[in-house]
Amino acid sequence: MRAAVLRRGRMVVRDDVPEPVPGPGQVLVEVKACGICGSDLHFATYGEELLATTSQLEGVPDQNDSVDLSRDIFMGHEFSAEILQAGPDTDTHAPGTLVTSVPVLISPRGVDMIVYSNTTLGGYAERMLLSAPLLLPVPNGLPPEPAALTEPMAVGLHAVNASRIERGETALVIGCGPVGIAVIAALRLRGVENIVASDFSPTRRQLAATMGAHVTIDPAQDSPFHQCAPAVVFEAVGAPGIIDDILRRCPAKTRVVVAGVCMQPDTVHPLYGAAKQVSIQFVFGYDPAEFAVSLRAIAEGDIDVRPMITGSVPLDGMADAFGELAAPDAHCKILVTP
Amino acid sequence: MRAAVLRRGRMVVRDDVPEPVPGPGQVLVEVKACGICGSDLHFATYGEELLATTSQLEGVPDQNDSVDLSRDIFMGHEFSAEILQAGPDTDTHAPGTLVTSVPVLISPRGVDMIVYSNTTLGGYAERMLLSAPLLLPVPNGLPPEPAALTEPMAVGLHAVNASRIERGETALVIGCGPVGIAVIAALRLRGVENIVASDFSPTRRQLAATMGAHVTIDPAQDSPFHQCAPAVVFEAVGAPGIIDDILRRCPAKTRVVVAGVCMQPDTVHPLYGAAKQVSIQFVFGYDPAEFAVSLRAIAEGDIDVRPMITGSVPLDGMADAFGELAAPDAHCKILVTP
Repeated sequence: MRAAVLRRGRMVVRDDVPEPVPGPGQVLVEVKACGICGSDLHFATYGEELLATTSQLEGVPDQNDSVDLSRDIFMGHEFSAEILQAGPDTDTHAPGTLVTSVPVLISPRGVDMIVYSNTTLGGYAERMLLSAPLLLPVPNGLPPEPAALTEPMAVGLHAVNASRIERGETALVIGCGPVGIAVIAALRLRGVENIVASDFSPTRRQLAATMGAHVTIDPAQDSPFHQCAPAVVFEAVGAPGIIDDILRRCPAKTRVVVAGVCMQPDTVHPLYGAAKQVSIQFVFGYDPAEFAVSLRAIAEGDIDVRPMITGSVPLDGMADAFGELAAPDAHCKILVTP
Repeated sequence: MRAAVLRRGRMVVRDDVPEPVPGPGQVLVEVKACGICGSDLHFATYGEELLATTSQLEGVPDQNDSVDLSRDIFMGHEFSAEILQAGPDTDTHAPGTLVTSVPVLISPRGVDMIVYSNTTLGGYAERMLLSAPLLLPVPNGLPPEPAALTEPMAVGLHAVNASRIERGETALVIGCGPVGIAVIAALRLRGVENIVASDFSPTRRQLAATMGAHVTIDPAQDSPFHQCAPAVVFEAVGAPGIIDDILRRCPAKTRVVVAGVCMQPDTVHPLYGAAKQVSIQFVFGYDPAEFAVSLRAIAEGDIDVRPMITGSVPLDGMADAFGELAAPDAHCKILVTP
């Protein structure tokens, strides 16, 4: 079977990947579309740093402790797929049903994240395994391409839910890559009446407006904080220095939601935070209910994700797609259609 | 009149300070007791750094922009005092009434913090000015010494209120200096049933237990997070590295309340925060209602602050007191009794 794998920092297509065989509770699916996530690009570049940092973490199970960067790595966690065949003693939807799922595979070994793995296949493959109890059938005849955006849109929904923002409060979204755009869509879904989006790229600002931002700002012109007074700031850049810049410039009592994932150490001035009694909520992922709400919102047309899909490539176009996505202006979301 | 002033980083007693004259709405008081705050020690050491950092801040008025470190600085914001004389057309309590107040002086120039100033007197003086509308008479015959602890205890109360901790949740207080002790007392007042206090100093751990900690921990023996699983962590150290250490070690979804004031830049790993979806709430000061609740709790015996008062010095003992407070083991709160 064919799959694109990360090998020494580059995406490579293999055609000798063993055909996956569903065990009890598992389902074999044919991948229809899989989004390329910024975190996959980050992992390709900063994989070693990421593994070193997460290995220091206490208080949570280390999902990455078995990842070996010297071996091929399967990725792809934003997928829609068609059911081919259920495993033994497994009750599920009919073959041919289009589904999506939180990227988790339940196996006798335990619960594996479908994100970076030497063994668990992701959506950058012709076929993969999913967990029958986690499958969500895609409703309303929604095509596979927008259905594959359920996952990234759930990330935005989770960030917005965590902020507990009220409709009348001003939201400032810093960074209009896929995470920032998903946050904007979720803010609009929640009925927030003043959504301000900031990005250096005119293309991204245009997309932010299309997806629901009421005002867009070019931070090269002036600080976003000179142009609005947000109650909640969504950090969706994930680069060193952004958090401290927000702490320094934001109004007193700002709630900062950090949705960008900065993989390097970062410097902050706690005094900035103290002087203004800022709160910082780090967010990550979503819960299964948020994932389901995200799918429903897309399928019912409450969120139109089509403007976000700026490209589509086969498996052997992935290496080029990774390169194109590194430039912020050209693309929002590229889908792989194996 | 006599007052102790900060001059080139050291406390010096002057006897030539002009007698303060209350304007309309102001009251002349005789200082009875004034606590030495850790922030005063910090300011003596890091004053220049503090002013440089706060001058960078946007979004809040710069309280310190007029402070000139090359001139004498008045300090002392944890005071109790007796009313001597009201200003013109000013209605207030009778002369001789023992009062305390949030450290704010209202004048025709505006609202000045009583904290570090070349012009506004603080509690390290024989007499000072207060604002009639802000005065709180000290009830129940509470002596001036414990009444002077209203302010630091309000800081702890505010931190605990901001945490929204529930009685059944475990609190971990890191650092048992005056801020940590005030947090512990406020947690006990709130009825929190599992208060864990961590400090390297046995003396401080003993005081933490006296003031309400159910368990005390020596972090030199083992990480506090190996000894308890807190829902809320109160950072009351204020030194570089502590926040990142908490992020690295704490359980998922921990709420971190930063009550310590670290005056230097600090390095954190945002990835630690993201992986565990930690929230960080920076807190500072208190609101006037919390200040009043703090006074009432002390006066009604709900918080017994007497074990915190470990020393008392006249104005000309302040230089030595600053030196003694720099060693963590000897003292909690030293009062100046001008």
